[in-house]
Amino acid sequence: MDINEELLHHPENDPAYLGLKVNQGVAAQPMVNPNLRRVARRTYTVDEFVEGILRSDITCLSQAVTLVESNRPDHQAIAQQIIERCLPYAGKSMRIGITGVPGAGKSTSIDTFGMHLVKQGRRLAVLAIDPSSERSGGSILGDKTRMEQLSREKNAFIRPSPSAGSLGGVARKTRETIVLCEAAGFDTIFVETVGVGQSETAVHSMVDFFLLIQLAGTGDELQGIKRGIMEMADAIVINKADGDNIDKANLAATHFRNALHLFPPTESGWRPKVLTYSGFYGLGIKEIWDMVDEYRHFATDSGYFEEKRQRQTKWWMYESINEALKNSFYQSDAIRSLRPEVESDILSDRLSSFVGAQRLLDAYFKSLK
Amino acid sequence: MDINEELLHHPENDPAYLGLKVNQGVAAQPMVNPNLRRVARRTYTVDEFVEGILRSDITCLSQAVTLVESNRPDHQAIAQQIIERCLPYAGKSMRIGITGVPGAGKSTSIDTFGMHLVKQGRRLAVLAIDPSSERSGGSILGDKTRMEQLSREKNAFIRPSPSAGSLGGVARKTRETIVLCEAAGFDTIFVETVGVGQSETAVHSMVDFFLLIQLAGTGDELQGIKRGIMEMADAIVINKADGDNIDKANLAATHFRNALHLFPPTESGWRPKVLTYSGFYGLGIKEIWDMVDEYRHFATDSGYFEEKRQRQTKWWMYESINEALKNSFYQSDAIRSLRPEVESDILSDRLSSFVGAQRLLDAYFKSLK
Repeated sequence: MDINEELLHHPENDPAYLGLKVNQGVAAQPMVNPNLRRVARRTYTVDEFVEGILRSDITCLSQAVTLVESNRPDHQAIAQQIIERCLPYAGKSMRIGITGVPGAGKSTSIDTFGMHLVKQGRRLAVLAIDPSSERSGGSILGDKTRMEQLSREKNAFIRPSPSAGSLGGVARKTRETIVLCEAAGFDTIFVETVGVGQSETAVHSMVDFFLLIQLAGTGDELQGIKRGIMEMADAIVINKADGDNIDKANLAATHFRNALHLFPPTESGWRPKVLTYSGFYGLGIKEIWDMVDEYRHFATDSGYFEEKRQRQTKWWMYESINEALKNSFYQSDAIRSLRPEVESDILSDRLSSFVGAQRLLDAYFKSLK
Repeated sequence: MDINEELLHHPENDPAYLGLKVNQGVAAQPMVNPNLRRVARRTYTVDEFVEGILRSDITCLSQAVTLVESNRPDHQAIAQQIIERCLPYAGKSMRIGITGVPGAGKSTSIDTFGMHLVKQGRRLAVLAIDPSSERSGGSILGDKTRMEQLSREKNAFIRPSPSAGSLGGVARKTRETIVLCEAAGFDTIFVETVGVGQSETAVHSMVDFFLLIQLAGTGDELQGIKRGIMEMADAIVINKADGDNIDKANLAATHFRNALHLFPPTESGWRPKVLTYSGFYGLGIKEIWDMVDEYRHFATDSGYFEEKRQRQTKWWMYESINEALKNSFYQSDAIRSLRPEVESDILSDRLSSFVGAQRLLDAYFKSLK
């Protein structure tokens, strides 16, 4: 996107945006020759895409991700070829899911975590899954400003959530973007979610380590976190452990530790850890990433790391199949016309759930022939 | 089943059973005229089944449940007609899911809980979901002896888990049995699971209240409990709060209360409760059932009770549909022959999960035409 487009999409320049009253100045002059755009956007071949990605060409990577995210069948066809070619070079990163309710300080934390890793010489891609998000015209301005320091680092690649769609679709795009980022040499991948929706299961099925950001407090802050997420976490990290808040954060850590102790052990045999930190002041950051490294050693040594990856690969194939089967069913004309009647029959006890299901299934399979 | 058959199925009489060495006595004499059986097992018409169930004829109810549990298409056809006719009379009970690891004292607890309810004039059906169980020849001896007091009560109907099969199939049969039991006037339904498998989600989707039985201790007893179950519970009740164990039970209750406090509130707005009791000595039983009644009032007043029931009815229809769609796919010849190859391709990074899924889907839909 060139500067002109960016300006056009900036909320201040949108006549429908009423949040700020700004005097309309003269139209911004193009700062870059607009004709340049056509050149920059010339279509790469699949070979060129793959070569570009493998030599870490960020423009090339970005455009490939755009194809992955596109719903156009011709884009998808190219995207799938690129992914297939990149697969043998992928898989070598540590993939970390990060979640937490709005207000827990996710952006600041990711900025701080990321800078810690980049300073160690690591290359970080920050992706997101948020099926509810609406991206205006492809602008990633919002996300770049959320992570001020990282966005200036050439070893960090920040990409917001693919635009709105079904959770399965959005998650698949993020998962495929991971493949491209890994082929481009990123050795650490963050996948961020908002912590209030269904996305966590999908993220959990594409990452190696799942980090839950919490706040110290009375428990009221948990209102927004979906039940079940705590049991997915490989670590709970408590933010804002600074100043007057330190005692509260430590107390919260003790509470969470006691709670986790009541949970059965995880599949990996890893005992989920609880740590405190300050995203804003950069305190306790090293300890968190030492722990993540410890987990990686632990899971690699036991063989769980690779086993989980293989299971995830299968899970995604079967998840894609199940979603396609459901779509074929629920979007068929036969079901669309019959479903309201059957649903009303089962809700009013005229039909059992099972007979209702049978009636719809018969209509569907008949329509396929 | 007549006495002779029961004896035949008793493990002591099974030559393959080596656990107990008992001298083989003379063959037991038939205590009931064996010809009687043919008369008792004559085929009822659907009308007769429904009438029998509605006037609480237990023999009739049992035979109808046997039809529900049968996999024979002709049995299923009659069963579905009976269920449909019973539906308008069903739905008036309190349905309670009860789970806990082996050793937590589920059988004794259910026996004691049940006696408490029966003495209050309530009529109780105890069902179970255990897809792994194997029922030898239809004998319910094992289950009846597990609940010694209840099994002698005419207002208690104890039925073991339908025989082994897919979880969805077994759970559906239990759910349909609930309908028949309710039509027969049972006002309280227990659905028991073993607490270690996948069954809890299915049970959670057919009950109004979910009770988790725990033991006091260091947390090691939790090893067997599947992650996620604690977050489903409407109440955690800690057994064996008697004698020297009382302090330990109270301490465990405090720990669980603190842990639950860290969870976000449930959908219903109900704060899950933690209570202690002794199933063996019958202590703390009244408090548990007062709490269940309190929940019922709470959820009825808020409208959540009925809302959840309606959601469950829909869930089961869609669950049946999704399971049927998957079965049609995975059991088709096209998929059986292609699947191993595609799975190996995705695991060795020759194909992406998504392209693998697409390949299988194409083969499936082509085969349907």
